[in-house]
Amino acid sequence: MIAWKNLDTLASYQELQKTEPIALAAAMAGEAGAERVKGYTVPMGKGLDFNFAARPVNDEILEKLAQLAKEAQLTEKYAALYNGAVINTGEKRMVLHHLTRGQQGDDVVADGVNKRAFYLEQQKKVAELAGKVHAGEITNAAGEKFTTVVQIGIGGSDLGPRAMYLALENWAKVNGTHKMKAEFISNVDPDDAAGVLSKIDVAHSIFVLVSKSGTTLETLTNESFVKDALAKAGLDASKHMIAVTSETSPLAKSADYLAAFFMDDYIGGRYSSTSAVGGAVLSLAFGPEVFERFLNGAAEQDALAKNEDLLQNPAMLDALIGVYERNVLGYPTTAVLPYSQALSRFPAHLQQLDMESNGKSVNRDGEPVSYLTGPAIFGEPGTNGQHSFYQLLHQGTDIVPLQFVGFRRSQMESDVVIQGTTSQQKLCANVAAQIVAFACGKDDENRNKYFAGGRPSSIIIGDQLTPETLGALLAHFENKVMFQGFLWNLNSFDQEGVQLGKVLATRVLKGETDGALKVYSDLLGI
Amino acid sequence: MIAWKNLDTLASYQELQKTEPIALAAAMAGEAGAERVKGYTVPMGKGLDFNFAARPVNDEILEKLAQLAKEAQLTEKYAALYNGAVINTGEKRMVLHHLTRGQQGDDVVADGVNKRAFYLEQQKKVAELAGKVHAGEITNAAGEKFTTVVQIGIGGSDLGPRAMYLALENWAKVNGTHKMKAEFISNVDPDDAAGVLSKIDVAHSIFVLVSKSGTTLETLTNESFVKDALAKAGLDASKHMIAVTSETSPLAKSADYLAAFFMDDYIGGRYSSTSAVGGAVLSLAFGPEVFERFLNGAAEQDALAKNEDLLQNPAMLDALIGVYERNVLGYPTTAVLPYSQALSRFPAHLQQLDMESNGKSVNRDGEPVSYLTGPAIFGEPGTNGQHSFYQLLHQGTDIVPLQFVGFRRSQMESDVVIQGTTSQQKLCANVAAQIVAFACGKDDENRNKYFAGGRPSSIIIGDQLTPETLGALLAHFENKVMFQGFLWNLNSFDQEGVQLGKVLATRVLKGETDGALKVYSDLLGI
Repeated sequence: MIAWKNLDTLASYQELQKTEPIALAAAMAGEAGAERVKGYTVPMGKGLDFNFAARPVNDEILEKLAQLAKEAQLTEKYAALYNGAVINTGEKRMVLHHLTRGQQGDDVVADGVNKRAFYLEQQKKVAELAGKVHAGEITNAAGEKFTTVVQIGIGGSDLGPRAMYLALENWAKVNGTHKMKAEFISNVDPDDAAGVLSKIDVAHSIFVLVSKSGTTLETLTNESFVKDALAKAGLDASKHMIAVTSETSPLAKSADYLAAFFMDDYIGGRYSSTSAVGGAVLSLAFGPEVFERFLNGAAEQDALAKNEDLLQNPAMLDALIGVYERNVLGYPTTAVLPYSQALSRFPAHLQQLDMESNGKSVNRDGEPVSYLTGPAIFGEPGTNGQHSFYQLLHQGTDIVPLQFVGFRRSQMESDVVIQGTTSQQKLCANVAAQIVAFACGKDDENRNKYFAGGRPSSIIIGDQLTPETLGALLAHFENKVMFQGFLWNLNSFDQEGVQLGKVLATRVLKGETDGALKVYSDLLGI
Repeated sequence: MIAWKNLDTLASYQELQKTEPIALAAAMAGEAGAERVKGYTVPMGKGLDFNFAARPVNDEILEKLAQLAKEAQLTEKYAALYNGAVINTGEKRMVLHHLTRGQQGDDVVADGVNKRAFYLEQQKKVAELAGKVHAGEITNAAGEKFTTVVQIGIGGSDLGPRAMYLALENWAKVNGTHKMKAEFISNVDPDDAAGVLSKIDVAHSIFVLVSKSGTTLETLTNESFVKDALAKAGLDASKHMIAVTSETSPLAKSADYLAAFFMDDYIGGRYSSTSAVGGAVLSLAFGPEVFERFLNGAAEQDALAKNEDLLQNPAMLDALIGVYERNVLGYPTTAVLPYSQALSRFPAHLQQLDMESNGKSVNRDGEPVSYLTGPAIFGEPGTNGQHSFYQLLHQGTDIVPLQFVGFRRSQMESDVVIQGTTSQQKLCANVAAQIVAFACGKDDENRNKYFAGGRPSSIIIGDQLTPETLGALLAHFENKVMFQGFLWNLNSFDQEGVQLGKVLATRVLKGETDGALKVYSDLLGI
């Protein structure tokens, strides 16, 4: 029997608050520090490890976190979720994104169909279409192969698929699986669509229109933009466009599209990269086999997340330490810092994933909570970030917990040796150095050159960023956010906070404004 | 006589803390709210306005902020800066970036030269080179015109110039001034350089190597990467590379470069977009005339920043309200939200500008301060952000002050009408709606659909994003950060916090590690 309780009503949380915080700089120093780094690590499979030595915990705090995990019934709640319970309480929906990449529990039936079978069917249909496009069986009107795929979507239909595409673009090039270049149109700003259209060859492009409801303002507007461009080029839009939508949407059965693939209400946009939302563009760009490898990487993390033992469950451990940092230690934000240029937009995806899921002030029953929930998330790839905002991370007045990611090998494996080391070695040396610099600090009589240390981080280390490890990273953070939602007793799967702005924008466009809204509208020339 | 005092020693700051915070939702409601929006606005020139009606101030608080500005001697400190005082106390340097775009005060002489004349000379030399490249007077070995310019730099040599290039790329295309495509290589990750090189035509590319010291690890490594690629293509690197560096750097007088342009120690990387660091790549990409228009836009804001009257000085006003939000109201972060796809990387530039300048715990004399200084900064363009992290901004447990930017006209002016309105109108309607939604909120019996409101924002509204308005935006935020540094009594112009990581990384690369650093190095395969 699952009890859904607010964090501050749990006895183990009260206990956790009573523990003495650790002195991280001291704990990380000397040989004891070395032993700590060796010991505080959890294998994730696929050559990945989650190392949390530089997070502010010790065995006592870990024991308290284990008790919290147990009292909060994290394992049971996850099981309820993947077995089809109505976890999205606000919208009264199941939460089934795990089923797009595997099956962790019972068969889940909804709307009269087995949902795992349904998602697999969509994946298969996408794979078939991609195969025909790549083989030249589906071509443009001139019988020429398509070379470019353009995703039209916003939010979850954009950030995740875009981040995943960029993460594998160069890898695919050197591995011979880069089949089509992908571009993305998202913003309602007309310069977004116009800019993308100005640099592609529309005659050789397939457009993937992604909108679950089939009513997203930005996406329908951009569809028209693209259809105009196709018409101007004398092309038949219905031979260049694919829809990814729900079966009940206006786009589902339209003759306007070459094909339609389906998603449903049980997968939120920000959790949809492993559904047809990511599947269509990624399968077209890299081939269905690469997309399947990506799914397998995610599925393995989903299985790992079932472990009741914290030290065999990196997502749960990451979640618990994050809540400890946020609610007990009071750290206001979290930074995501992948040492991999290919992950340049991964932080932007996690920003949505985390902030839209857990940026809430009411619990899953709609009652206000009296503790802090999700923090602001930001980040850029290293080493770029080092030359940007790391100053504040090292010496600012706020302490910002850091989530590093690093790989031993580059993707393209083209490298140069300068001063005796490769660029990849320099990249890895920098992330190792940063973890220690943040944790241990450095004394200096000149206070301007003094580093207090005690600034926590963890790192996921892998051999190389591949489809499997990318899938693993994605699922790790999805599951971390899910567990944090359970701890804060939130519904992490709705987003009522985006509604008011939409309502007011519609009012402006209809001219139904007064007061401040009217003045702002006037100032903006509407 | 200027007195440099910590914020918490100022009588006017004590007074400010005693003021009653305003009820923003109530203040923005009804006709009084409409009047407030009309009244709380400051013209910035070039058709721009800074509207602060939705920031948490009233006339009483503004009066207190004016007293704070006076007691903190903001105008005098700015004057000292542009007249050549040693404002960068840690490094004992003047701070002269304003001189790259105009002269606000006395002649400044350093190293025996008039610095305004020096920067103008560099600008002129850049313009001459760009003119010759565009005219085909400087070509590749085959006598063909260069089509692409690739900036090699990191941090301030990358983020600002990249953000500025992206901001004007589409504008230049439709205005007939897009002369060369620009690309950027920054990260020491070898996949960054390899990825860029895989998509450009090196035979028709000029590379701009930017490093003030001539010793930046990432930049020199990437230079080698590029030289290897040029050599493999049978090309003479010295005919394809330009250096932007200090006169004393090893790159300055080298036969390895087609030309060298100079910067100096009086301009920090994050303030260098208006120097040759931004000038070379932007003049090559868009022509020197466009770069000059950009400088003029910045210079006008620098002049505006001299006003002692808060209500005629948007940068100072923005700075003061930001300090009030941070230190009196306790808001932990700030988001930058331009409603313009062209400003996609402007938030990343401001992230460096702000966090590297004011993310510090000691004052300009190296003494610890006992108040919060610079906040974490993040942001993405709207409407994209609305579908990402706005959930937390509307309903999260933290209040995040917002800095909106919006333009009445798009850059490319290619648009479609859907449901009776253009995309540009939809874009503008959204930002108007968001300001009011954040400020006023909405009551609802269902607490999940309830918006508390009281979430502050300001907006800079302009007619169009052009070289002038872009320069104005850049200078506004530079000057805002400068004034906040004065208020917090910081040295905003050094970055000692980035040094420790560099030292430890060098140690790793030399194999001189022990303890935790050695174990992390091993785990990362170095």
